[in-house]
Amino acid sequence: MTKTNPGRFFEDYKVGQVIRHAVPRTIAEGERALYHALYPARHALYSSDEFAADCGLDGSPMDDLIAFHVVFGKTVPDISLNAVANLGYAEGRWLRPVMPGDTLHSESEVIGLKQNSNGKSGVVYVRTRGVNQVGETVLEYVRWVMVRKRDQDADAPETVIPELAAVVDPADLIIPEGLSFASYDFELAGEPHRWSDYAIGEKIDHVDGVTIEEAEHMLATRLWQNTAKVHFDATNRDDGKRLIYGGHIISMARALSFNGLANAQMIVALNGGAHANPCFAGDTVRAWSEVLDKAETAAPGVGAIRLRLIATKGDSAGFPLKGDDGKYLPEVLLDLDYWALMPT
Amino acid sequence: MTKTNPGRFFEDYKVGQVIRHAVPRTIAEGERALYHALYPARHALYSSDEFAADCGLDGSPMDDLIAFHVVFGKTVPDISLNAVANLGYAEGRWLRPVMPGDTLHSESEVIGLKQNSNGKSGVVYVRTRGVNQVGETVLEYVRWVMVRKRDQDADAPETVIPELAAVVDPADLIIPEGLSFASYDFELAGEPHRWSDYAIGEKIDHVDGVTIEEAEHMLATRLWQNTAKVHFDATNRDDGKRLIYGGHIISMARALSFNGLANAQMIVALNGGAHANPCFAGDTVRAWSEVLDKAETAAPGVGAIRLRLIATKGDSAGFPLKGDDGKYLPEVLLDLDYWALMPT
Amino acid sequence: MTKTNPGRFFEDYKVGQVIRHAVPRTIAEGERALYHALYPARHALYSSDEFAADCGLDGSPMDDLIAFHVVFGKTVPDISLNAVANLGYAEGRWLRPVMPGDTLHSESEVIGLKQNSNGKSGVVYVRTRGVNQVGETVLEYVRWVMVRKRDQDADAPETVIPELAAVVDPADLIIPEGLSFASYDFELAGEPHRWSDYAIGEKIDHVDGVTIEEAEHMLATRLWQNTAKVHFDATNRDDGKRLIYGGHIISMARALSFNGLANAQMIVALNGGAHANPCFAGDTVRAWSEVLDKAETAAPGVGAIRLRLIATKGDSAGFPLKGDDGKYLPEVLLDLDYWALMPT
Repeated sequence: MTKTNPGRFFEDYKVGQVIRHAVPRTIAEGERALYHALYPARHALYSSDEFAADCGLDGSPMDDLIAFHVVFGKTVPDISLNAVANLGYAEGRWLRPVMPGDTLHSESEVIGLKQNSNGKSGVVYVRTRGVNQVGETVLEYVRWVMVRKRDQDADAPETVIPELAAVVDPADLIIPEGLSFASYDFELAGEPHRWSDYAIGEKIDHVDGVTIEEAEHMLATRLWQNTAKVHFDATNRDDGKRLIYGGHIISMARALSFNGLANAQMIVALNGGAHANPCFAGDTVRAWSEVLDKAETAAPGVGAIRLRLIATKGDSAGFPLKGDDGKYLPEVLLDLDYWALMPT
Repeated sequence: MTKTNPGRFFEDYKVGQVIRHAVPRTIAEGERALYHALYPARHALYSSDEFAADCGLDGSPMDDLIAFHVVFGKTVPDISLNAVANLGYAEGRWLRPVMPGDTLHSESEVIGLKQNSNGKSGVVYVRTRGVNQVGETVLEYVRWVMVRKRDQDADAPETVIPELAAVVDPADLIIPEGLSFASYDFELAGEPHRWSDYAIGEKIDHVDGVTIEEAEHMLATRLWQNTAKVHFDATNRDDGKRLIYGGHIISMARALSFNGLANAQMIVALNGGAHANPCFAGDTVRAWSEVLDKAETAAPGVGAIRLRLIATKGDSAGFPLKGDDGKYLPEVLLDLDYWALMPT
Repeated sequence: MTKTNPGRFFEDYKVGQVIRHAVPRTIAEGERALYHALYPARHALYSSDEFAADCGLDGSPMDDLIAFHVVFGKTVPDISLNAVANLGYAEGRWLRPVMPGDTLHSESEVIGLKQNSNGKSGVVYVRTRGVNQVGETVLEYVRWVMVRKRDQDADAPETVIPELAAVVDPADLIIPEGLSFASYDFELAGEPHRWSDYAIGEKIDHVDGVTIEEAEHMLATRLWQNTAKVHFDATNRDDGKRLIYGGHIISMARALSFNGLANAQMIVALNGGAHANPCFAGDTVRAWSEVLDKAETAAPGVGAIRLRLIATKGDSAGFPLKGDDGKYLPEVLLDLDYWALMPT
């Protein structure tokens, strides 16, 4: 019997099943510094303990996407080792800031299954939670992936497709305890634009581009203990390139969005997202955003803004997205829909 | 109206103007570890808490050049986004060690302006200060850059050229509080050579070479939140290379200088510096130093040594510098003039 | 007189000589995060403070190989700067976990010398110790290297070849104080296989591969302050490649061995090791292991397992090792023999 992990196949999942993922992780100042080296991250609340304290927090939390990547990475050996495609995200919420020294582990509940008509694979829906060392959930999201069957003759399970919200209701956004933007320092944050300056429908070209290197995306992906082999093993492909972890593009695009959205400080919800096309080393990533919605919150000076974040390996100036056929343009890498918190 | 930062143009600067730069940054053990991974840094005082404590400090400070890069990086969006050239440095002084956990922000005062005769650009002189979380200045330096005009027809400002010291007077060097080299451990530091062993005019070839990779200089430059696009966007150039941040060469050369100057522990002043030629990935950096001056200090066993540090992408054995025409040789990358502290 | 370090030559070593190596190093969370970014390291005891505490430790120690690399790196300027080959390791033992914030330095005693018959070089045997800030030895090992002579006419020293144990006796393994696997959480650790599930002679193909980049091995090697120039200077070779530090392969193979040996948590002894062939950027590293022996320990639920760890740049599925001529196959990079601790 082999002792290595063959991963789960479609027929191994049952609705209601809860999987406790392996390898808890303590994250601290080192992960923060690496995040700043890997991405052009400049949001002040995640850069300065003083700035965060002035916003009512106990020092600067770990970047929201560090929490996401760590929680996500742990699910890979159980959820996506035999996945053919990462199909979507929904109902993602950040419930509590992750502070340096916190230890996270992940758990996923299977909430839906649907075998494909070809009988070779099926779609698995999981709700994943990141849990800290005192048992608090810090993050949750739904993800669905297409997973191969081990045995094509295995019976199809009963189809269960979960009802998922198209958008997290602003009333369900969790504002970190104590957060206040009442005495927010726009000058130190880097831009004067406040929540009230953004109009629904407004598009922002984030201008800057970053050309990606193999060493960088591998460092990042390993840091999150995401060991899916397509990201690391060049012998998988004739051109010696490695498929870049989709989360690397999320972080790169979010960091680039500082230029125009410097005050969209905290990510509180992930409404949806698609990795539109694969990205490889040598591609130059650019980003643009569209304001999809705005909502008030109960916290002092804190507004919520719903943003569409697009990453492209082409020019971002023309706001590329989909072609006349309704499909993503070939240069579009990411289409992400999230809520962030901003000073009003 | 665009929400992204277009940067300042020459006509946006006024003498006496003070710019408080964005994105304060807390720096800690993570940045230290990355510094040691990015550069062959071995000066013992910045490597070991115990060694630093034996020199009278409260543990090992962050490398002096970390402080410089962090402070410098914050000025880029306000000072050099539309700069054509980084022309010089003067009157740089380290006033206080930066310890892990400190939060820095930067402020610059415009101290000089001179429009070029072509009317297309001008020289801007700024005095930049790095300030910690309790308001203490940890570092200050003067830098001048050539900046494009937005509107070539804009009026030229009154020319103001600041009087800058060619060299920081040794009497003005700030010795960190408590510093003593009275019981300095030369064996642990790595070399037996003390201040009194170095002669003015002496040249030292630091022998070792490091070939630079794109991933490394981008990691470094992002770590200092320096987001000047020329360092990251390969589509800016036909050859797909990215111009390497001049500070990367400063740190690389300083680290290489350990081999021959292991006891030139702390940098206390930056007298001047020129980025003589651009550096690109694939270049192999070597360094040599010349002893320019020596001075005594009031601290126990502590001498000051003024060093010229040259980085080259060619051979360092012949001490390359300038040609018969008085211009830097094409292989010379950096010509830096600084004061360091050394056990007498 | 040159001030740079020329390194020691064969005739500079005397049996009984003790060399205290330079540049002590404080290691902390930053080094841990970088280790996780550089290698696909997932052993839970080194990833989570909580997991480690549940095993009776005061939080998660630094990875055992971080301790090894830091201690080893310091010896390079004194032992292997003029080395022609790294010949072997023996009698390596980890004596005490290294915790974040500890400061290490290294000392080596020359325990053997043998001039080669060609008169051009000789073998130097050293016993190296890593010592922490309170003077405790955390690690010790014997290494022997072939070192060039400065002067071929220098007299040969008396030949002294130390008697070295082929394997560290299990009775001599040091179990970290307080360690207990009595309530070990196999689910969080990532695999169900316990000590009793492994049979002597069993081979495990670790399946995954990682393609190595120049930037990564240089970051790693610098992090350990190992500045041997062959790892950094591309102008040393016509193909512009740099010889990868053998320790990088050790860490890569050990991290890959998680897949099948997730519960071989702590390395406690290094019985021997050979860097069978050089590795260069572009190579894809895979690994396999063989169970060589097992032993009980006095600690609750803790067994010792002796493993042979092979790294290869070819396929690992066929367990490549040596050819009919008894020589390592050209694709084999590493043959390491170590003891690890595992839940029984």
